[in-house]
Amino acid sequence: MEPKENGSELGQIIDGPTNPMVTPLLNDLYQFTMAYAYWKAGKHNERSVFDLYFRKNPFGGEYTVFAGLEECIKFLANFKLSDEEIDFVRDCLPGSEEAFCDYLRGLDCSDVEVYAIPEGSVVFPKVPLMRVEGPVGVVQLLETPFLNLVNFASLVATNAARHRFVAGKSKSLLEFGARRAQGPDGAISASKYCYLGGFDATSNVAAGKLFGIPLRGTHSHAYVSSFMSTDEIVDKVLRSADGKTTCEDFVSHVQTWLKKIQYSPSLSGIFSETNQSELAAFTSYALAFPKTFLALVDTYDVMKSGIPNFCAVALALNDFGYKALGIRLDSGDLAYLSREARNFFCTVERELKVPGFGKMVVTASNDLNEETIDALNKQGHEVDAFGIGTYLVTCYSQAALGCVFKLVEINNQPRIKLSEDVTKVSIPCKKRSYRLYGKEGYPLVDIMTGENEPPPKVGERLLCRHPFNESKRAYVVPQRVEELLKCYWRGSADEAREELPPLKEIRERCIKQLENMRPDHMRRLNPTPYKVSVSAKLYDFIHFLWLNEAPVGELQ
Amino acid sequence: MEPKENGSELGQIIDGPTNPMVTPLLNDLYQFTMAYAYWKAGKHNERSVFDLYFRKNPFGGEYTVFAGLEECIKFLANFKLSDEEIDFVRDCLPGSEEAFCDYLRGLDCSDVEVYAIPEGSVVFPKVPLMRVEGPVGVVQLLETPFLNLVNFASLVATNAARHRFVAGKSKSLLEFGARRAQGPDGAISASKYCYLGGFDATSNVAAGKLFGIPLRGTHSHAYVSSFMSTDEIVDKVLRSADGKTTCEDFVSHVQTWLKKIQYSPSLSGIFSETNQSELAAFTSYALAFPKTFLALVDTYDVMKSGIPNFCAVALALNDFGYKALGIRLDSGDLAYLSREARNFFCTVERELKVPGFGKMVVTASNDLNEETIDALNKQGHEVDAFGIGTYLVTCYSQAALGCVFKLVEINNQPRIKLSEDVTKVSIPCKKRSYRLYGKEGYPLVDIMTGENEPPPKVGERLLCRHPFNESKRAYVVPQRVEELLKCYWRGSADEAREELPPLKEIRERCIKQLENMRPDHMRRLNPTPYKVSVSAKLYDFIHFLWLNEAPVGELQ
Repeated sequence: MEPKENGSELGQIIDGPTNPMVTPLLNDLYQFTMAYAYWKAGKHNERSVFDLYFRKNPFGGEYTVFAGLEECIKFLANFKLSDEEIDFVRDCLPGSEEAFCDYLRGLDCSDVEVYAIPEGSVVFPKVPLMRVEGPVGVVQLLETPFLNLVNFASLVATNAARHRFVAGKSKSLLEFGARRAQGPDGAISASKYCYLGGFDATSNVAAGKLFGIPLRGTHSHAYVSSFMSTDEIVDKVLRSADGKTTCEDFVSHVQTWLKKIQYSPSLSGIFSETNQSELAAFTSYALAFPKTFLALVDTYDVMKSGIPNFCAVALALNDFGYKALGIRLDSGDLAYLSREARNFFCTVERELKVPGFGKMVVTASNDLNEETIDALNKQGHEVDAFGIGTYLVTCYSQAALGCVFKLVEINNQPRIKLSEDVTKVSIPCKKRSYRLYGKEGYPLVDIMTGENEPPPKVGERLLCRHPFNESKRAYVVPQRVEELLKCYWRGSADEAREELPPLKEIRERCIKQLENMRPDHMRRLNPTPYKVSVSAKLYDFIHFLWLNEAPVGELQ
Repeated sequence: MEPKENGSELGQIIDGPTNPMVTPLLNDLYQFTMAYAYWKAGKHNERSVFDLYFRKNPFGGEYTVFAGLEECIKFLANFKLSDEEIDFVRDCLPGSEEAFCDYLRGLDCSDVEVYAIPEGSVVFPKVPLMRVEGPVGVVQLLETPFLNLVNFASLVATNAARHRFVAGKSKSLLEFGARRAQGPDGAISASKYCYLGGFDATSNVAAGKLFGIPLRGTHSHAYVSSFMSTDEIVDKVLRSADGKTTCEDFVSHVQTWLKKIQYSPSLSGIFSETNQSELAAFTSYALAFPKTFLALVDTYDVMKSGIPNFCAVALALNDFGYKALGIRLDSGDLAYLSREARNFFCTVERELKVPGFGKMVVTASNDLNEETIDALNKQGHEVDAFGIGTYLVTCYSQAALGCVFKLVEINNQPRIKLSEDVTKVSIPCKKRSYRLYGKEGYPLVDIMTGENEPPPKVGERLLCRHPFNESKRAYVVPQRVEELLKCYWRGSADEAREELPPLKEIRERCIKQLENMRPDHMRRLNPTPYKVSVSAKLYDFIHFLWLNEAPVGELQ
């Protein structure tokens, strides 16, 4: 897992990709067959421009969070085929000439340029997230790894942002998906990009260590079932929080509190006898973590057993200066149970005179997703933190984002990819793109122009055209103009490059951009599409090329 | 990527997991908080038994392919926390005692036993895929990594098996998912386990190198668009397959054939002029790969341009002793286009007297899945090979399998996990399981028994009971009895362990087992559930425990 160092003379050293399995061989075979065919045809050094973009926002929404850029740059900076890898590639290309191996041996990205929208930005269909320029032989070999690194990263970051949107700013969002993710890296990537998309913490220790993401976790049902009774607890001693007193028998102290709760006039009747193995588990867990006691209360029965047992332990801890954190609910009617638990905590606060007890944190987990959180909101709940796993990390409601990597120019010749499906036609040319902001500070429209067109100017009226639909066009007077593509890699001239900011900063950019979108683009039901356009000049050129390339049909 | 060696004295050295990111930290934090709490309570060495199983077959089907076992054993065999990892864990557990670090330092799996169903087996809900025994402190730390390694592996292997089922035995199935997979490891795992589940090849070069999976791939649309005209082809020389003759101008030779096709009475009228950049790309690609020429024919227009251009090149190659492989279609009406292409090839064979030309391989790709292949079958098609990406590797129609890891016994005391949802109640006790076969050789039922019950006997009538539904039971007279759980890891006594077979053998087991299932369990629509049962004795014991543990409700 040692990151490889960039051996080039570029000055700045960039670590290798997080996952050491990300090598130039993480590639479709056809990239190598094409590299060989380009080389064989003497075309491998032709200057090409590829756009990486997607065609449709995921999850039925109208926005996407761009993520994965840093990993692409790390891959690029360390792009080098080992001798062993070259031998393997040669064996995969029957009949290939030996000199091709020499070509592969010399291959690196010192002649490649990458322009990209900053990671963590809100992005839209058709607008290039990355523009990659360089010799076609090597840029072709970047297609599969870049798509792999961007597709899932952006998808899961968007999913996280959507979960944040529905949960609201005040809730804690915890990613709990490691066990259900698509493989080990699926888990680690999900943890990273869910944090980027606005989550607060993860349960995944490896991701916590790799990326500095806050970690969360308590105990499972197995821990509760592993106890039979409080007799199992041998070491019953608890030092007080201030270290001044010692409770010699914390177990009895808990049991005394349990009786007090039971005989409290407002709480009696809710339960008769609580489960003793659960009480033992909670007590023992509190002895291990008196400062951060948080209990899973649904192993037997939340209201009849889990909550009273938890309160007995929390009250006992309170006597020694420890504040329990709260509970986790992992089954049942989460809206109802969270409200009941809150009532119980508030009654304890009132009846037993424990200030703040009613503010106990209620965490909910169990197959949560956008819809269930939305439903909980509608029913009314008292949940403070959501632990979300499966549906978040596997992007269950849409498991893939369809980013593509299309040739738009080669040898200064613009290229267009036609398709009978108009949404699949590519926008040719080396382009620039801009985000235009309106009076209220919201982004209004993204516009793509030819590379050498003058940029849009603040206060100047500009025609924005839908790239394919001639009737859709609008004049815009931008109040602010932001060029979207910035240079992240320019072969050997790296002093001019954009910095790769730390994950925390990327996350902040993402949260800020999401908050700055016009609300109707963000809503879950029937959101308004954000406008993506081309300049009048680019529009005309696209359609000139299109007519030139498309065969004329013959009706028979 | 160097596999770690197992440093224990177990004799046999087992490589580490394929992905070096699979370390003991690929874990939920709560496994470590529990490990600490077990240790603090002096319970960490209590002998525990956990079952790993799932509750519902994926994809609306009635079977699942078990995969991921080998990676679990590799993880286990190399389970060791580094000092750096231990320091990190300590920092995650505020207030933890220093002596816990010594405990972690000494932790390995030399006291753990793993019994599992062989990898590649067809498996069913509730029956343990793995039974893991050992000190609760360490076994708890295996939960998240094992679930992570088994869940996606089994899911995607099952998805592959389902695609094979609908495509039929005679078709080639190629996994093309690297760019859309959930992260780099999602791609590599998908390639491995799709092969296991019955695919023939992958496009993923890294997976080909790691696992010896056959590789496939040709070229993309970008390759076609990168050419402007045949004038670009500088080196036009082609040596014949037997090395005896040389074609000095292969480009002109191709053009001659294109005219011949155009003037052939039965082919004229289909096209007038084909796209010249496409012709250049095909010609150049054939010069690079004369032995394995396969062209993507849909960049401009399949029937008007792609197919005639391909045929011209294929016929030109044929003159020099090379047999073209075929075409790939990546858009449009695949059923119609494949039939039209086949007709064209057959006409060429007949008209131009080229034996075998009609048998050209037609590969189809473009968002294929079970449903679209089924629809193609119903429409009638001439596709020989399917290239399947997104829907296969991300398991789009169900992106997660819900394997769980439940405590069933500790300190020789059986444990049950109750739930208001009866499908979530766990089956307690250390168990054995058997597959019983009927007269026709098909598996009839899986049965779980207590560990010390006598095994079912061939020819002896046996009562099989549904674990939770008292009215569902059946007598069975097995013609063959197969014990399902085999020992794959037994601490230091590894000479008695089952071998970890090579991937090819696991794949063969999988294909054979799938073919040996009764067809009504396998069909796509309304398949019959396979029966999973417990012995009468285990049934009684489950329900005795259940009544003992469940609180009695009070209607108010």
